[in-house]
Amino acid sequence: MAEMTQPISPEGAKARVMVAGVTGYTGALSAWLCWQHPALELVRITGRSEQGRLLSDLYPRYRVPLEIAGPDIAAFEDVEVGIVAYPHGASAPMVAEMRGMGLSVVDLSADFRFEDRATYENSYGPHGAPELLEGAVYGLPELNREEIREAELVAGPGCYPTAALLALAPLAEAGLIEDVVIDAKSGVSGAGRNGGEATSFVGATENVTPYKPAGHRHRPEIIEKLGLLSPAGSGDWHLTFVPHLVPVDQGELVSCYVRSPADLAQADLDRLYGDRYRDEAFVNLVDSPPGMRDVRATNRCHIQALAGDDRIVVFSAIDNLWKGSAGQAIQSLNLMLGLEEPTGL
Amino acid sequence: MAEMTQPISPEGAKARVMVAGVTGYTGALSAWLCWQHPALELVRITGRSEQGRLLSDLYPRYRVPLEIAGPDIAAFEDVEVGIVAYPHGASAPMVAEMRGMGLSVVDLSADFRFEDRATYENSYGPHGAPELLEGAVYGLPELNREEIREAELVAGPGCYPTAALLALAPLAEAGLIEDVVIDAKSGVSGAGRNGGEATSFVGATENVTPYKPAGHRHRPEIIEKLGLLSPAGSGDWHLTFVPHLVPVDQGELVSCYVRSPADLAQADLDRLYGDRYRDEAFVNLVDSPPGMRDVRATNRCHIQALAGDDRIVVFSAIDNLWKGSAGQAIQSLNLMLGLEEPTGL
Amino acid sequence: MAEMTQPISPEGAKARVMVAGVTGYTGALSAWLCWQHPALELVRITGRSEQGRLLSDLYPRYRVPLEIAGPDIAAFEDVEVGIVAYPHGASAPMVAEMRGMGLSVVDLSADFRFEDRATYENSYGPHGAPELLEGAVYGLPELNREEIREAELVAGPGCYPTAALLALAPLAEAGLIEDVVIDAKSGVSGAGRNGGEATSFVGATENVTPYKPAGHRHRPEIIEKLGLLSPAGSGDWHLTFVPHLVPVDQGELVSCYVRSPADLAQADLDRLYGDRYRDEAFVNLVDSPPGMRDVRATNRCHIQALAGDDRIVVFSAIDNLWKGSAGQAIQSLNLMLGLEEPTGL
Amino acid sequence: MAEMTQPISPEGAKARVMVAGVTGYTGALSAWLCWQHPALELVRITGRSEQGRLLSDLYPRYRVPLEIAGPDIAAFEDVEVGIVAYPHGASAPMVAEMRGMGLSVVDLSADFRFEDRATYENSYGPHGAPELLEGAVYGLPELNREEIREAELVAGPGCYPTAALLALAPLAEAGLIEDVVIDAKSGVSGAGRNGGEATSFVGATENVTPYKPAGHRHRPEIIEKLGLLSPAGSGDWHLTFVPHLVPVDQGELVSCYVRSPADLAQADLDRLYGDRYRDEAFVNLVDSPPGMRDVRATNRCHIQALAGDDRIVVFSAIDNLWKGSAGQAIQSLNLMLGLEEPTGL
Repeated sequence: MAEMTQPISPEGAKARVMVAGVTGYTGALSAWLCWQHPALELVRITGRSEQGRLLSDLYPRYRVPLEIAGPDIAAFEDVEVGIVAYPHGASAPMVAEMRGMGLSVVDLSADFRFEDRATYENSYGPHGAPELLEGAVYGLPELNREEIREAELVAGPGCYPTAALLALAPLAEAGLIEDVVIDAKSGVSGAGRNGGEATSFVGATENVTPYKPAGHRHRPEIIEKLGLLSPAGSGDWHLTFVPHLVPVDQGELVSCYVRSPADLAQADLDRLYGDRYRDEAFVNLVDSPPGMRDVRATNRCHIQALAGDDRIVVFSAIDNLWKGSAGQAIQSLNLMLGLEEPTGL
Repeated sequence: MAEMTQPISPEGAKARVMVAGVTGYTGALSAWLCWQHPALELVRITGRSEQGRLLSDLYPRYRVPLEIAGPDIAAFEDVEVGIVAYPHGASAPMVAEMRGMGLSVVDLSADFRFEDRATYENSYGPHGAPELLEGAVYGLPELNREEIREAELVAGPGCYPTAALLALAPLAEAGLIEDVVIDAKSGVSGAGRNGGEATSFVGATENVTPYKPAGHRHRPEIIEKLGLLSPAGSGDWHLTFVPHLVPVDQGELVSCYVRSPADLAQADLDRLYGDRYRDEAFVNLVDSPPGMRDVRATNRCHIQALAGDDRIVVFSAIDNLWKGSAGQAIQSLNLMLGLEEPTGL
Repeated sequence: MAEMTQPISPEGAKARVMVAGVTGYTGALSAWLCWQHPALELVRITGRSEQGRLLSDLYPRYRVPLEIAGPDIAAFEDVEVGIVAYPHGASAPMVAEMRGMGLSVVDLSADFRFEDRATYENSYGPHGAPELLEGAVYGLPELNREEIREAELVAGPGCYPTAALLALAPLAEAGLIEDVVIDAKSGVSGAGRNGGEATSFVGATENVTPYKPAGHRHRPEIIEKLGLLSPAGSGDWHLTFVPHLVPVDQGELVSCYVRSPADLAQADLDRLYGDRYRDEAFVNLVDSPPGMRDVRATNRCHIQALAGDDRIVVFSAIDNLWKGSAGQAIQSLNLMLGLEEPTGL
Repeated sequence: MAEMTQPISPEGAKARVMVAGVTGYTGALSAWLCWQHPALELVRITGRSEQGRLLSDLYPRYRVPLEIAGPDIAAFEDVEVGIVAYPHGASAPMVAEMRGMGLSVVDLSADFRFEDRATYENSYGPHGAPELLEGAVYGLPELNREEIREAELVAGPGCYPTAALLALAPLAEAGLIEDVVIDAKSGVSGAGRNGGEATSFVGATENVTPYKPAGHRHRPEIIEKLGLLSPAGSGDWHLTFVPHLVPVDQGELVSCYVRSPADLAQADLDRLYGDRYRDEAFVNLVDSPPGMRDVRATNRCHIQALAGDDRIVVFSAIDNLWKGSAGQAIQSLNLMLGLEEPTGL
């Protein structure tokens, strides 16, 4: 049937790609995005469970008629690019193997996100492949597109950091953040598959619950990256980050409440954000509060920056599985392969 | 059938009550709570539309088999108590009529919430019965129980102020708030009936959207009441308030991010909140983040106060239709009538 | 705090009750209904897991501040009545132990529902206490109230059979069913706790799926009970039963499509159903299609019987956890204890 | 920004298309599908309200940056193809105008669906352009692809008939239907925009309700088309059709319960359906019950045909806005324009 054939690239050879870890939500979507990508050939999908099943049976909404294979290394031989959707900690050794075989890799886990190894280990435990940290590039194209183009190992950012950093980058780069409270809301798919009672339908429907109100592991990621964006000497700032689970499948909204050292009017914010994001294909500045639904199943980020009653308020909405993970991985992969950035998205 | 008879009070006479404005969500629930209340006799329900229909047909979930009457004043004669569930502005004249007939009144609108008339009029327009303002009591029993006992006109607080004030009162009373960001999430019923596309199923499902991010009318209400709680000379503080619509029917969660002039440890917060709420029937201090679902269809408020990563974080969950409106109205009414506060709730 | 004290029965002694298996949805609700029942004293709750936790921590929405105990038999000594909310098969031995200690029992599993042991074993496997089958009474009060009053072991019906039998009883008793298709829709809580991907939020939201379209175990239960209701010699009839999972927490709707040997007009149906259910406290005949929401968190069943375009159509809506399980158990228990049938419901 | 440019067809001229009535759900989606279609140029969108607004503001999820124009006829001049998404009755005059200007038209309303004018008028009232009825082709490509290729006026089928006819066609064509009960479930978007309390979030969430259980207007549509498929002399059959509203945005599932004059085993059904749909790009035969979610936001129909306990059971799942309306319109339009059938879908 028609959908069982991958799109054919008119101009010739496609990059041969594999996705490791397709049984989870972000791995499955990564496979699907590769499958229908005009310049990628998805040659292999692996899982740590469900081996032998077709991915299209496990996820009928992602119509990838490939069998889930075990993580057999030799099979990487004919592959040029790997996307790894393993849990934190488990990812590093797999990435190391792939890199050893010469594959370019986009990793969706936290394992290669941090410049500071101690910060990583403080949240996630001992690092499994520290020798690769230095060459890894943080895969948020709107912040470091040029480095991604040159990278052979890209670390996909966390979903919350993606939304938060896009919301705050224009202010941070201008040294305009003194204190920020980030109240984040995530759809249930952000918690991954088989999350127990909290992510069951009965547990999540008609409910909104904060979780990990202190010590969430995305807080140090946001802090490190915001710090790198900020001008030297812009001083210390405070950052509170609290996530909430909302009864939505896919979607994420961060509401950022910023106190600034400067007195910024709405026109200042409009200019600052407009200048920063004018040429971005996947960032839309909107003039009414963005909803999760507006960006569902897209790689887009909708941002509104407001001079609020007492603080600057910045809303940022993404789809946690797309721009917050698998979609952004493809965006980075396109850059790594010299393709147009929005290809296949 | 069994449910068609109101519970009979063992000790004799019940207070005769009417509910004006039963076609909306809070009015309908108020009628239902009165109907099954052991010490109230619901003798009349009125609506500005749907006249002649049984309330149990309009709202099968509220099994009140009374006909919706028009707002005919003469009919108030045999009534001792009125609950008014009219929109802001429309409520004041109805309340004035009821008070003129000698009824004790609980009003669910904003019309009698403010001590400062100018603050009211700045948000809601000209006041329809300013002569009644001085005698009106703000109906948040946990804050001013004794005044409510003596009151003949009680103004039910807004749903967000209810949750926010219960969350912040212990800190405010001790002069421990310097700056607070309130990120609030409300179920769709909070927007009232027939709210258009945003409150349609298609508009709200799989969506979370901020709304009125600047200038929401509950902000001045919170500011006035927090100010009254704060010790004299506790100085100015900043308050940001931003509500969000979440795909939940009934439920409200406010997440309060507080910077305090003091350095409070978790044990300090536990003591402060424990002392304040120990004897409250409807406030539960919980030690994991409260969910909307935990308090659904109850008059309860679940609160957690946390020494967070960088700020004090206080979560407060209520059912916006119950503790946020109709349930709290019954709680106040019980006090006004000399009944046990939790009767019928 | 106020809710931590069970209601006190004015007239004196309460029946001492235990609930076995409170970690699942129906057991937890059973415990909650007992806790707030004016004529029951809940003295013990047990679980096969979560021992030592307070039920009010596991289920904040059910405020039962008792510790979950292990299933220790000696502890039954001071108990008069047991409710068993164990899985099918595991229930029979527990029921046998309780009966051996002299307790009256309401069992929520399928283990004692069938008159015909072979039918049971065909669906559920070998029976664990066949000696108790003869004395067990099917606990659908609207069908066999008098037997329940005398019973010491009541088998709570399945949720689908409850809704379907109430829908079809008037027709079956009059021999008016020739062929029936039952299309059933259930909320996710009907599948029990920890049901895997299908009952996860991501799996269930924005989805409707048929399941077990052939061979569902509630079909033989419906067939046996309908057969017992039908007049001798009313002949064979056909019955199709297909359940669907809908993105609702609690609620069940069965749509029954009946071909009748007689030509029944709407007035005939109105008379038949009106006569049958006039005096029932928990069955409401409605004249527009009933919704799940109308009966949520109640023990009610809303039924509409219609002379449709081509067939008789009967809709029946219940809350699967209440009338479909725990609520109906209390209804039966009230009868067994000589209380008013709706007490505490 | 990138998405603001329509895809450019490599081979040259695109068909110039307009969509009339874009403020409703199916019109808005039609516009979006045209906008991103590689062989269509969307040159005009009209609405009977919201004129002057950008469609991308009204529906952020459909990123069509065109202004909504009024229904000005002169403006049709440069247009070759029209899609009309008007309500029943209002559509016929608009279609007549377009046809008068020489446009090829796909109409989404019921106005041109019936071969028998009396059947139409019995359900919908007087026909507004009966002279066009004879030339109109029913736009269900899987049933009458060749006629659609030649048509200048295609009537898009109703959403329920689409799902039901695809489910039943193989049986009907073989004369294998004697009696059928169709229990249909639709997401809320099927009721259209601004549907009042029943389609509000509060009315629809945690609810499932039958509606129009007798006399739904899709029943005669299904009967007429099934009759046309059935072999002459295959005799009379009975058909019951009852729709239900489920708390889903987009999605539709019909469960068909068929009594057949023949005794069909599972292998017979597999062969019959396999032969019928083997070459269809948009029909998938699945071997476990299809869920609405599997086909969300696709033009696909998932079908399972089962030899059930007592009857043949056929499930058919579509997205009511896609295959049930706007997607199928594009599928027909592709045929009318001589394009590959799945282009742009």
